[in-house]
Amino acid sequence: MTAAHTDHTPLEQLGRQARQAARHMRIASGAAKSAALLAMAKQLQARRQWLQDENVRDLQAAAQRGLEAPLMDRLKLSDKALDTMAAGLTQIAAMPDPIGGLSETIVRPNGMQVARMRVPLGVIGIIYESRPNVTIDAAALCLKSGNATILRGGSEAFYSNQALGTIIQEGLQAAGLPAQAVQVVDTPDRSAVGEMITLTDYIDVIIPRGGKSLIARLSKDSRIPLIKHLEGNCHIFVDRAARLDQALEIVVNAKTYRCGICGAMETLLVHADIAAAWLPDVAARFAQLGVELRACPRAAALMPDAVPATEDDWATEFLAPILAVKVVDSLDEAMDHIARYSSEHTESILTEDISAAQRFQREVDSSSVYVNLPTCFADGFEYGLGAEIGISTNRLHARGPVGLEGLTIQKWVLTGNGQLRG
Amino acid sequence: MTAAHTDHTPLEQLGRQARQAARHMRIASGAAKSAALLAMAKQLQARRQWLQDENVRDLQAAAQRGLEAPLMDRLKLSDKALDTMAAGLTQIAAMPDPIGGLSETIVRPNGMQVARMRVPLGVIGIIYESRPNVTIDAAALCLKSGNATILRGGSEAFYSNQALGTIIQEGLQAAGLPAQAVQVVDTPDRSAVGEMITLTDYIDVIIPRGGKSLIARLSKDSRIPLIKHLEGNCHIFVDRAARLDQALEIVVNAKTYRCGICGAMETLLVHADIAAAWLPDVAARFAQLGVELRACPRAAALMPDAVPATEDDWATEFLAPILAVKVVDSLDEAMDHIARYSSEHTESILTEDISAAQRFQREVDSSSVYVNLPTCFADGFEYGLGAEIGISTNRLHARGPVGLEGLTIQKWVLTGNGQLRG
Repeated sequence: MTAAHTDHTPLEQLGRQARQAARHMRIASGAAKSAALLAMAKQLQARRQWLQDENVRDLQAAAQRGLEAPLMDRLKLSDKALDTMAAGLTQIAAMPDPIGGLSETIVRPNGMQVARMRVPLGVIGIIYESRPNVTIDAAALCLKSGNATILRGGSEAFYSNQALGTIIQEGLQAAGLPAQAVQVVDTPDRSAVGEMITLTDYIDVIIPRGGKSLIARLSKDSRIPLIKHLEGNCHIFVDRAARLDQALEIVVNAKTYRCGICGAMETLLVHADIAAAWLPDVAARFAQLGVELRACPRAAALMPDAVPATEDDWATEFLAPILAVKVVDSLDEAMDHIARYSSEHTESILTEDISAAQRFQREVDSSSVYVNLPTCFADGFEYGLGAEIGISTNRLHARGPVGLEGLTIQKWVLTGNGQLRG
Repeated sequence: MTAAHTDHTPLEQLGRQARQAARHMRIASGAAKSAALLAMAKQLQARRQWLQDENVRDLQAAAQRGLEAPLMDRLKLSDKALDTMAAGLTQIAAMPDPIGGLSETIVRPNGMQVARMRVPLGVIGIIYESRPNVTIDAAALCLKSGNATILRGGSEAFYSNQALGTIIQEGLQAAGLPAQAVQVVDTPDRSAVGEMITLTDYIDVIIPRGGKSLIARLSKDSRIPLIKHLEGNCHIFVDRAARLDQALEIVVNAKTYRCGICGAMETLLVHADIAAAWLPDVAARFAQLGVELRACPRAAALMPDAVPATEDDWATEFLAPILAVKVVDSLDEAMDHIARYSSEHTESILTEDISAAQRFQREVDSSSVYVNLPTCFADGFEYGLGAEIGISTNRLHARGPVGLEGLTIQKWVLTGNGQLRG
């Protein structure tokens, strides 16, 4: 792709095209957007052989580079992966359209009507690693919410992402929407990401999907706002008033449902009053499940197979079958520990005491705060959003799992009849 | 003020103190916050002589520097100015507290309850020029919304701002709230602003209040998100189906209510079908009011006293009795012009045609879009927010006039009974 105008780089040209397409997408009908998503789902079936052939080009290059098996798995556009993508498209197509609706309308003393109308953010940049399905999933959510999208995937999935980009554009065109509403950056050039994060005129927000070093780099260098979380160092506090049998199942689920997700519990805080009665059962259960325990001295005394926890362990997101365990003397001490070490992702209290539960939910300053639930529920689908583009620990705009609403903003619409000010 | 810890600069120390105070402010009761605001209002009366003496130090220095009369007026802590500040504090004290309340709660298929709880942003930085009343007004809104605040005012109001800062802290202490919940930077050092905008660990958002060069500089250099607008290049489009008598009053109000506010109309677009019948009356009226008209050729032909408009005039926020006027052939042409030249602040259509009104409100992408109202209504009090910390043309978090809600975010609170995932 060459620059249409000699003054613009190829990425700036993509940006200009995205801004143009955003004008159309902003006022596209819900019906057209849903039709585009359904057409994409259809193309994922109709052009499956071609998609999988293009995917093989990436798989062969990856195998030559000696990519490990789990990563090869993630790269593969298997029938199952493509069916899941198609199902996701169909589901998003069926969701209510988030654009154009009004909040409640109030009438001011002078008679003018004041309301807020929901509108798209504009142009969204997605910077992602490894998983080709992000190309489809993220583009679908941006499209449904009336945004234009620029996608920059990992080089290991280059041909797969380009092919999926083609499918997307076929879907857009089938519905009469601008093809440039979704653009997949087609230069394998490593400098593309560095340039994308400076394009403040063309991109309104960037959503990174990938590992910590990607997120950390973008957080430091991006001139464009990000919707992101860096880490999920999630805590569960088992209070003196917890139902201990239920608590055991909850903490096991929170650690082992899937160790590698951001909502996995990484530190278990236990009230001293119930530690002696409860921790040995916990230790036995985690031993069966192969989870290594790193314990403070008081917890270690109750769990013989535990190793001593270091200061770093309290601050570490293990993303592995490892759990840090600490005995605390009070709800306040638990909340102080969380305030000090959490990444503000998700924390939970297990208790039957109303006051403890209320204080915990009110005072813990994370993006999700639970009572009597495992932290692994941190997921937009579980919350009923119907979709999720990522989880945010930002303090502005969107906090926690981000669905369609997080890809929109509200403008004010006022309707009068000649009222004058002053 | 010296750094308590040799590793931190004085500003970093303020930041650490603010973060500490924010933990308390986050869970402060509504009653305590209101009591603090009322105590401040009381001190504005009780310590008025001292406040005005401190203000005189700034006024004398300004007079020596030859500051112009309008700016001297803005600097003066007159009885009227202080009474207005006190009234503002009392009014904000009486407003409902925005913190701690829940959105509607939904119940998921597995029985867990999902809701959002409103919480403060954290630490807010206010960087402002000239007007000492911002010290009180901005601090009050941040306090009411449970945030900690760091204020950096203009050097010309140094003693006034310090004195008002003392009043604020007396009010906080009277209510049992931490004095460091509101800190006024006390180094006249010009580098303070440059350092403030890098303190990403300590400040969550910065709200600038001042002239365009301040906002532009911060937009370019701040590592901390800003809530701001750069310009108010506001448009009114008088459609072919407008009520012409009403339209005349509206455009006069929009231009002359106060020329220097961001919501003042700067460009008037007129449908060709009614231009000949209407523009001469408009020209006559603005001539009486001393407003200079800069017109496109077709408009100039109808308004003999108008001067020719240049390309720059369409993009200029005059903040003066000057108005750019253009005749257009259609609603689409009006909206294209707005899309090209507006600063996304406030635009209005004057029409009795439902379809034109609906299209304009749906398609114009500004932070406020009106039907049959003058653009000068762009103000949080006029919208019923009860307060306004500024107007934002951001696309994330808050758009348009920003009240208490814009100084908050929502976290997710889930309550279950031992449900497990998977």
